[in-house]
Amino acid sequence: MSESDEMARRKASAATWFAALRDDICRAFEALEQEASGPFFPEAREPGRFRRQPWQRTNHDGAPGGGGTMSLMAGRVFEKVGVHVSTVHGSFAPEFAAQIPGAADDARFWASGISLIAHPWNPNVPTVHMNTRFVVTTKAWFGGGADLTPMLASRRRQDDADTRAFHGAMARACAGHAVADYERYKAWCDEYFLLKHRNEPRGTGGIFYDYLASGDWEADFAFTRAVGETFRETYPAIVRANLGTPWTEAERYEQQVQRGRYVEFNLLYDRGTLFGLKTGGNVDAILSSMPPSVRWP
Amino acid sequence: MSESDEMARRKASAATWFAALRDDICRAFEALEQEASGPFFPEAREPGRFRRQPWQRTNHDGAPGGGGTMSLMAGRVFEKVGVHVSTVHGSFAPEFAAQIPGAADDARFWASGISLIAHPWNPNVPTVHMNTRFVVTTKAWFGGGADLTPMLASRRRQDDADTRAFHGAMARACAGHAVADYERYKAWCDEYFLLKHRNEPRGTGGIFYDYLASGDWEADFAFTRAVGETFRETYPAIVRANLGTPWTEAERYEQQVQRGRYVEFNLLYDRGTLFGLKTGGNVDAILSSMPPSVRWP
Repeated sequence: MSESDEMARRKASAATWFAALRDDICRAFEALEQEASGPFFPEAREPGRFRRQPWQRTNHDGAPGGGGTMSLMAGRVFEKVGVHVSTVHGSFAPEFAAQIPGAADDARFWASGISLIAHPWNPNVPTVHMNTRFVVTTKAWFGGGADLTPMLASRRRQDDADTRAFHGAMARACAGHAVADYERYKAWCDEYFLLKHRNEPRGTGGIFYDYLASGDWEADFAFTRAVGETFRETYPAIVRANLGTPWTEAERYEQQVQRGRYVEFNLLYDRGTLFGLKTGGNVDAILSSMPPSVRWP
Repeated sequence: MSESDEMARRKASAATWFAALRDDICRAFEALEQEASGPFFPEAREPGRFRRQPWQRTNHDGAPGGGGTMSLMAGRVFEKVGVHVSTVHGSFAPEFAAQIPGAADDARFWASGISLIAHPWNPNVPTVHMNTRFVVTTKAWFGGGADLTPMLASRRRQDDADTRAFHGAMARACAGHAVADYERYKAWCDEYFLLKHRNEPRGTGGIFYDYLASGDWEADFAFTRAVGETFRETYPAIVRANLGTPWTEAERYEQQVQRGRYVEFNLLYDRGTLFGLKTGGNVDAILSSMPPSVRWP
């Protein structure tokens, strides 16, 4: 098999797996919508189903540039959740190429990934983000991670059960994989998801990794799959554990104020959001991460 | 009078005037709160009063750097409105000095200004922004402007009465002042308040000007005063014209979605917001521009 055949196989394997993970996660989230028995918000009593919406990307030079599929759901557990896959290709505009590993002299790229943000109704259920991707320029690497944001200050603590469960799961996802450095990825997450202007973490952390290219592609891919599979098992369990907890109006208000911090982070700092918006990404897909209802009192 | 006495006089005149304009505008907005006869939102039936809150600024090198006063009101006409004055001084951090006229070789600066954003309850009442400032480095200039954002698509049109009134007023503010170029300032406003990622204007425009240093300081100051005084007369009249118009739940929803665009603009593009957050400005004052309740459905 020639090198380019091998790379073609890797690209196809990664893209196929991201789509399969999307299917699994959507199924798991729809199951949560079905099985939930309340309490529900009066305006959302029916179980949600994901709607899928394909989109096409145009490269900055006008050439076709791949595309993706948004999967969006508004239900009775999730006020808003997006699970998006995309496989895009083309070339970086000159002003961006220099910032991307392996693209300074040859701006062509290919990238495939899955990206998820969930905003539950119940303030007791944490918000979550998960993303993994495989990027190819003249180099090739995996990146991704997952982080948890409990919405109530009383639960946004390292000793809270949800955060302990989430950290424990991410540690296990790393543990079986020699290419993964859990302590480094955990610290990287804390560093990345910091609202610098407030010197305030976005949530309680998780893992973040990028530029993973150990030299053993299969091992890097296996770790990336482990992150996705661990997320798929762990987050629904956290949702389930909190779904029946009643909330107060004051807690709903606190949740909506905390969501403002999520907006501030995504629009001021998140690399994927800013890069996507500046490079002609799909605005609806990128900004589907915005919380459905927010307050800045 | 020596040059530095003359500059000291100019600084004091500008800062004094910004504070006086703040007083006038707060009085006018409190009068609107008093005189309004509804319809009101059930959660806000009492007339609001501004609360003033002083704050101190620390320069990036740890030295005292001036400060300001926030004036915030949550009432029955205004869901949230901030009218802020500040007079700050110090030196720009090296990474910013090069971007500021006259600061590349001597990073010291002084700046005073007024900044206002109003988010009315009633979706029929446009949101508005106004800001004027006097900035001194080795150069000295005025900048500012005002722009209107009708919240309902049916009213966010150039031929709408509010927008026509606002443009007419800003044209008159410029007309009496040879240093002001209305057509250029109007175009600058349209260019500045564009959400590039959506290729969508934030509102219906107004005027924007910066680096105004005609060589006749008194004339530049007189024009800046005219902008503030014109705003003070015009916006309350626009509020009054729409205050009694009933709204529907659908219009309230539309308003909250449109406010999301305001958030996107302020956090992705607004120079003052980004610069303030990066240079240790007062986070509460800067982000008091965020709308009180927002939706991204």
